[in-house]
Amino acid sequence: MSAFSFSKLVIFGVGLIGGSLARGLRERDAEGAGRVIGVGRRLHTVERALELGVIDAAAALDDDAALAEALKGADIVLLAAPVAQTHALLERIVPHLEDTTLITDAGSTKSDVIEAARAALGARIAQFVPGHPIAGRESSGVEAALPDLYVGRNVVLCPLAENAPEAVERIAAMWRATGAVIGTMSAAQHDRVFASVSHLPHVLSFALVDQILASPDAELKFSFAAGGFRDFTRIAASSPEMWRDVCLANRTALLAELDAYTEALAKLRAAIDAGDGAALETVFARSRAARAAWQERGGKRAADAAPDK
Amino acid sequence: MSAFSFSKLVIFGVGLIGGSLARGLRERDAEGAGRVIGVGRRLHTVERALELGVIDAAAALDDDAALAEALKGADIVLLAAPVAQTHALLERIVPHLEDTTLITDAGSTKSDVIEAARAALGARIAQFVPGHPIAGRESSGVEAALPDLYVGRNVVLCPLAENAPEAVERIAAMWRATGAVIGTMSAAQHDRVFASVSHLPHVLSFALVDQILASPDAELKFSFAAGGFRDFTRIAASSPEMWRDVCLANRTALLAELDAYTEALAKLRAAIDAGDGAALETVFARSRAARAAWQERGGKRAADAAPDK
Repeated sequence: MSAFSFSKLVIFGVGLIGGSLARGLRERDAEGAGRVIGVGRRLHTVERALELGVIDAAAALDDDAALAEALKGADIVLLAAPVAQTHALLERIVPHLEDTTLITDAGSTKSDVIEAARAALGARIAQFVPGHPIAGRESSGVEAALPDLYVGRNVVLCPLAENAPEAVERIAAMWRATGAVIGTMSAAQHDRVFASVSHLPHVLSFALVDQILASPDAELKFSFAAGGFRDFTRIAASSPEMWRDVCLANRTALLAELDAYTEALAKLRAAIDAGDGAALETVFARSRAARAAWQERGGKRAADAAPDK
Repeated sequence: MSAFSFSKLVIFGVGLIGGSLARGLRERDAEGAGRVIGVGRRLHTVERALELGVIDAAAALDDDAALAEALKGADIVLLAAPVAQTHALLERIVPHLEDTTLITDAGSTKSDVIEAARAALGARIAQFVPGHPIAGRESSGVEAALPDLYVGRNVVLCPLAENAPEAVERIAAMWRATGAVIGTMSAAQHDRVFASVSHLPHVLSFALVDQILASPDAELKFSFAAGGFRDFTRIAASSPEMWRDVCLANRTALLAELDAYTEALAKLRAAIDAGDGAALETVFARSRAARAAWQERGGKRAADAAPDK
């Protein structure tokens, strides 16, 4: 018997994340896989997923009959569209939502998604298990979807007090079937953690490029930028729209991390200004050691993908 | 006839940078190459370069007779030791310095090196042509030296008012013979440029790891750090001693860039706080476009090496 089986999975937004879930479940364990339906804002975007064989059927979000048909008898619904659409998507889903259907999501922020879900689902909030697969890549879209995208990657679940343990375990089992490793934490913890290790670095990286751009000798600076600049600013190649939404969605946690960072930077500034080499070396050495320990513990593997989302 | 020939080159500090110059000159154009002498603070460090065939002879810095012999009839001297040693090295060199010998360096800061050179060389300052090959790598030491390290890389020269044009051209020709591309700018310009595109990113990267370390949920944060964190903090794996020295040596320019950055960051903070998505998207999109243009123009090639120095 298959470790995870389902009869019907409905994916809202069949891009890299949703498409890789579909391919992971279907190609890694064909025995357990049921039907996968893709739903998109415009039909032609999900039709591409259909052509590629990533899904079995496609439905347009604004086609009420197709949506009802898609959600009929669904075991699991995955929201894999931008987090700002969570409330609107759930409002479309809720009239057709069966009692036995579980909903999860792939959003990179959690407190705001949960707030939207509570507003849209009301008493049915127990059916929503918030999640976040940590597996972005530079590429996006269903063409970039891979059956092994999640192998060895973290998927964070942020169970709600209302969720039945079986519901959480069912979503965990789905992700484990794609090769992912499951972590659970509270939504507040999740948002602090990702504000720190993902959202803040993106803001810092965008800020550096923008600051150079605004300087009078920008051209000269860019022409001598080398490997350090390239690595530091790789994440500034990320989608402006997505990172705008992330910054707004995770505003509170991001501001807290940004303020702590600004303080840490001010201390380094004071040490540079005072010519305090010992203080600088202490911070740099401590930082290097912590980063090396991270890499040693498997950070490198966990970080095989390029930018995170 | 060879494009660049020399009879005797003396390298102080035969590590990655000095060793790669020696190998580049000897292996890329054997016809033009003369003798290469390595000088080290301790003899055993340069003896390794001798064993590897990177240099023809080794001398210890504190051996006066060997130093005199090494510098006798030298065309070019390269200082490739940490910049903080510049003054002390030149004081050892100056008693044996012939009028026809040119000195250049490989330091990643220039104003401080020039100040040290003026103090040590006095009236002979015209013999010193300040330089900076932009070709660091994660590895260091003479074992990592490569004959083609400089192929397609930038070497910045910061000619002094006292330098004869022929002196500058001779040093430029030496680097060109290794495959490098020569740029010239003033020392102040150089220090601003590298404060911006190299020194500041290093400080920002060290600061992020240190700020995470100091937070109560550091362990959890590190355990979910992924690709964005990895890229952003790759340069925090750099030598704490070297970056301490760079920060102190380039203090003025670095503080100016750091202050401009802090201001840019404060503006982004205000936009996040105000929920001003349009302002965030404008900065992120502008930054992404500039970074893409940089990569397009060949930044990728120039950045093939990992961390810069």
